[in-house]
Amino acid sequence: MTPDELEAALRKVGAERYHNLHPFHHLLHGGKLSKGQVQAWALNRYCYQSAIPRKDAALMSRCDDRDLRREWIHRITDHDGTGEDSGGIERWLVLTDGLGLDRDYVVSKRGALPATKFAVEAYVHFTRDKPLLEAVASSLTELFAPGIHKERISGMLENYDFIDEKVIAYFRRRLDQAPRDADFALEYVKKNARTPDQQEAVIAALTFKTEVLWSQLDALYFAYVEPGLPPPGVFRPT
Amino acid sequence: MTPDELEAALRKVGAERYHNLHPFHHLLHGGKLSKGQVQAWALNRYCYQSAIPRKDAALMSRCDDRDLRREWIHRITDHDGTGEDSGGIERWLVLTDGLGLDRDYVVSKRGALPATKFAVEAYVHFTRDKPLLEAVASSLTELFAPGIHKERISGMLENYDFIDEKVIAYFRRRLDQAPRDADFALEYVKKNARTPDQQEAVIAALTFKTEVLWSQLDALYFAYVEPGLPPPGVFRPT
Repeated sequence: MTPDELEAALRKVGAERYHNLHPFHHLLHGGKLSKGQVQAWALNRYCYQSAIPRKDAALMSRCDDRDLRREWIHRITDHDGTGEDSGGIERWLVLTDGLGLDRDYVVSKRGALPATKFAVEAYVHFTRDKPLLEAVASSLTELFAPGIHKERISGMLENYDFIDEKVIAYFRRRLDQAPRDADFALEYVKKNARTPDQQEAVIAALTFKTEVLWSQLDALYFAYVEPGLPPPGVFRPT
Repeated sequence: MTPDELEAALRKVGAERYHNLHPFHHLLHGGKLSKGQVQAWALNRYCYQSAIPRKDAALMSRCDDRDLRREWIHRITDHDGTGEDSGGIERWLVLTDGLGLDRDYVVSKRGALPATKFAVEAYVHFTRDKPLLEAVASSLTELFAPGIHKERISGMLENYDFIDEKVIAYFRRRLDQAPRDADFALEYVKKNARTPDQQEAVIAALTFKTEVLWSQLDALYFAYVEPGLPPPGVFRPT
């Protein structure tokens, strides 16, 4: 494949597999969930948000290219914050605060679904264990993030009286951050995935990442929508 | 042990095992080495310097504590640089430039001793695989660094006509950076190593780290001082 053909193949993965297509998101953005179900989504998604710096540090720990590390490190500070900026994880906790969840409980992850935690850690391990090129490629779901964030912002503001601008600050910020990161990673992958094996591997890496995101919504749907069978020990809406 | 007794035990490791005691450093700082031997030291030490961000990223990849990550991340930017600051690795390359070494050759690590690379990668793997507390403790050789840096700055400036202020900028900067890092890590270890097993483990971690540093000088001494038998393929002074 030429680099542009590879880009088209990667975008096709998103068009077919990104979690904007998942029925749980249709319910979430369409105002069809109860506050308890939105709480379940937010506290499970915290596990993913809070793991991103570990995922990016795992990638950097295997990267002998100083220029790439210098570029990549802002992904960690975007989420952890630096100096006055409290960062994306803190903004996510503003969301869970706004939903009335106890912050210590959210941070402890005690109420999260095991399937959420397994999926998230699979992503951290992927970036630690796979070749660097595939680790970079696994970040490419950011290509498809602005669309879902815009849909989420407008849908949730419109449909839920417990959602306001303050609690969705996380998503507003990501509208700027995600495209910049995605553009860099896409160019890196197009430049460095030259052989058929490498191109197949980066498509598989992005597919894997869509599975990480999708499976978290499957677990939420199963536990909190239908059949609605939360496993022992996890969060139960009151 | 009380936290202060633990600190005393850690400082004793440094007093007995830190690489300021190694005969190679006595030669280096005392002006007893040829330019070729100093070149060999600098290009081997580049392997260590350039691995530090990977080591610190490996530590962060396993750290679920956002506050600790926010504190730790400057160790990466100290070495990789950020924005206008070109960073410690670049300052090390200014040193190897000043010694007349080809920069691409240094960065490629092709001329470095295998024993150097093994020791350096052992350190990266240690921080990736060991408990977080031990990974933090392994950084505590910074406690002993200012002494050796002062000795190095004055000794090398005085004794070698090919060393000037410009090329030793790396060490000047570390005089400020190392104590700040060491103080933080020491407090962390004193606070978190409470059980006898943990205390024994952090002492072992620091001991391990002194071995990482010491063994690099053994290999340099063997290859370039006495008996002076560089293995096949490595740098040979002209």
